[in-house]
Amino acid sequence: MAEIPHTAPQEPTGGYPRVVIIGAGFGGLAAVQALAGAAADITVIDRHNYHLFQPLLYQVATAALSPADIAWPIRHILRRQKNTTVLLDAVSAIDRQAGVVTTEGGRTIAWDHLIIATGAHHSYFGRDDWEKNAPGIKTIADATSLRQKILLAFERAEAESREHERAALLTFVIVGGGQTGVEMAGAIAELARHSIAEDFRVIAPASARIILVEAGPRILHTLEEKLSANAMATLQKMGVEVMAGSRVEDVDADGVVIDGKHIAAKTVIWAAGAKASPAGVWLGAPADKTGRVIVDANLNVAGDARVFVIGDTAAFTPEGATRPLPGVAAVAKQMGVFAAKRIRAAVEQRKPPENFKYHDVGTVAAIGRNSAIVVLPGLKATGFIGWLLWSVSHIFFLIGLRNRASVMLNWAWNYVTWQRGARLITSDKPEDK
Amino acid sequence: MAEIPHTAPQEPTGGYPRVVIIGAGFGGLAAVQALAGAAADITVIDRHNYHLFQPLLYQVATAALSPADIAWPIRHILRRQKNTTVLLDAVSAIDRQAGVVTTEGGRTIAWDHLIIATGAHHSYFGRDDWEKNAPGIKTIADATSLRQKILLAFERAEAESREHERAALLTFVIVGGGQTGVEMAGAIAELARHSIAEDFRVIAPASARIILVEAGPRILHTLEEKLSANAMATLQKMGVEVMAGSRVEDVDADGVVIDGKHIAAKTVIWAAGAKASPAGVWLGAPADKTGRVIVDANLNVAGDARVFVIGDTAAFTPEGATRPLPGVAAVAKQMGVFAAKRIRAAVEQRKPPENFKYHDVGTVAAIGRNSAIVVLPGLKATGFIGWLLWSVSHIFFLIGLRNRASVMLNWAWNYVTWQRGARLITSDKPEDK
Repeated sequence: MAEIPHTAPQEPTGGYPRVVIIGAGFGGLAAVQALAGAAADITVIDRHNYHLFQPLLYQVATAALSPADIAWPIRHILRRQKNTTVLLDAVSAIDRQAGVVTTEGGRTIAWDHLIIATGAHHSYFGRDDWEKNAPGIKTIADATSLRQKILLAFERAEAESREHERAALLTFVIVGGGQTGVEMAGAIAELARHSIAEDFRVIAPASARIILVEAGPRILHTLEEKLSANAMATLQKMGVEVMAGSRVEDVDADGVVIDGKHIAAKTVIWAAGAKASPAGVWLGAPADKTGRVIVDANLNVAGDARVFVIGDTAAFTPEGATRPLPGVAAVAKQMGVFAAKRIRAAVEQRKPPENFKYHDVGTVAAIGRNSAIVVLPGLKATGFIGWLLWSVSHIFFLIGLRNRASVMLNWAWNYVTWQRGARLITSDKPEDK
Repeated sequence: MAEIPHTAPQEPTGGYPRVVIIGAGFGGLAAVQALAGAAADITVIDRHNYHLFQPLLYQVATAALSPADIAWPIRHILRRQKNTTVLLDAVSAIDRQAGVVTTEGGRTIAWDHLIIATGAHHSYFGRDDWEKNAPGIKTIADATSLRQKILLAFERAEAESREHERAALLTFVIVGGGQTGVEMAGAIAELARHSIAEDFRVIAPASARIILVEAGPRILHTLEEKLSANAMATLQKMGVEVMAGSRVEDVDADGVVIDGKHIAAKTVIWAAGAKASPAGVWLGAPADKTGRVIVDANLNVAGDARVFVIGDTAAFTPEGATRPLPGVAAVAKQMGVFAAKRIRAAVEQRKPPENFKYHDVGTVAAIGRNSAIVVLPGLKATGFIGWLLWSVSHIFFLIGLRNRASVMLNWAWNYVTWQRGARLITSDKPEDK
């Protein structure tokens, strides 16, 4: 069967092994692309019509980029891959026995091989009531609504005559000192201190207070201590108050309680925790405390060679390691390719690769303009050189020439003028004003 | 007083004559910019934080441009104009006797001179119940929600197995054969026939039916007959069915009734009528049947030299003309400058200009790529030359270098690849899926 040239089925035909891939993030997309040309009927299911370059989502939230700069229609990416059908839908249940996936749109889709790459959401560590006042940034809708919230805070402060209210409007608390939190804090500092500094008459946006709270002893804790310290010093130079070893005890509409002390803040941003999508529940498989499904050396669940879980949804602990691989793009992509290779080998009746192995490609985090921390195998860079490397690597990994050119243009313009091109409060709902 | 150099007031001080400008569209923005450096305390009130380049809004609705490409923060445009304060708010009432404006945000703002430039909304000719199923395009939120509706129609058609439902999803009806309707019809045809033609497996997007309905005898009726005929031929060549002299009698969730015949269509777009914002009601002044306030030769209301109404909100009939000037950007801008000059003359105790006179700068309408109709004083162009002139003129009038570069980049990319860069369905609400 593998030798028969494959033509596109108008509907899944059953003639070829059926592969279902749930989620078209970094992991799912890498998997489907690695299956290009395979003699299989592939269905990709995603709840959005776009693949999102999540690492730059904070730049949408801070008005530097437009959503379309970092998102790309999944259908369009896969248009030439004729063995693949794209479905805009979300999974509601998986029946492993029957080999079917059920969707919120009421579909039932049969599979012979299944890859679950549904990612993660924010986690509020049991305090889901905080979400309303401390939104996170995982989707484009999150980012544009956060952009609106940040821009409106300055607008409201300009119109506010009560001093304490104005101060609360000009206080921004970012919870979580990982990469997203650090990048958000730096970007808001740049926005307030430079981009919009001249634009108001009553308030001085540059006087805004930006606080980055981290429960652990240091920010960017996956990096070595020296680099954490460098990042902290850079943020402080930009006017960000970094509170490491501090615990957020409460969040409400008026602010946060940190280590017993209330800080009045109208904008609180959550960059602290992730919780995997409910793949463990769907599969009835064991998961760790953040909901990630525990997978074996071949990324399979409970020894079921038909079912793979990858990316942020999976807890894979390499041999000899003490904790699972982190939820980053590079891990997800490599997992996707590995799962695809095993499926392809099964379809083509060849010997599959064994035992997933992650090749570390490094860590990068930008801290405002001119400064980033880059740790690659055999290379460490900070400051301006780090920032150049960060910029080039991000542009390189964007999908599509247009997006690369558009992001480059926006960054160049931002670099020269300090301006941000997407300062739009787009909602027409009066309650958002 | 006029000789005293003006410094920026931290709060409106009352030391200078107070000018309030409501609305920062083409008219309002032209007025405030023409008052740069005047010895006046100027307040600009707008319900959005951005000035919008409305003529390209249809390109946002059809996924060619991002909102940030055609919008610019009002504050930023006016940041160096120190006599001006920008307020994000909407007017709820005007008291001419007391000389104050009241806002939805609960503010009361006093004025010595007032310019009302609040624009127009869609008009459904008394059938406001049609709005839900036949949305118009006046704001960014309108455009992104229409973009979502159009893209979702193709997604739903791909997943639909019932033939008649699929046909209804692939039928797009645009009501109104003016500039917006013609441009929308052309853009949707291009989207369906080229941009997304390859991306689906079940449906053939190129088979979509696109119908442009116009109640009058011909489309683009403000142009001479030959040009109308040229536009119609171009649209027909692109596969748009043009129904001139046809009346829409009903709109519901399943389609439209045109001349007694029901056409099943899941996407109906309203580009037919405009209704001025309620300035007439606010002022207690006479208005025409579309709500436009009737203004005198100096654009004043009922001889009140302090109050100007301009742009789409005003009905100004030049001497000897049979009908008021049309609601287009050029008219609004020239009216804004005229009103500003009169106010400036009053402030500086000079003789004001008399009798507004519109200098016709022409009409342009794009009909998909490679074709536009351009009528300038002393020049008529159609086809490719028209399209080049159309492109250059639109880029020229955009505010800001970044926006110009970004729009040029997107157009160039679209021209070469036929692709549209902003094909995003961004809502996370399940009911939108």
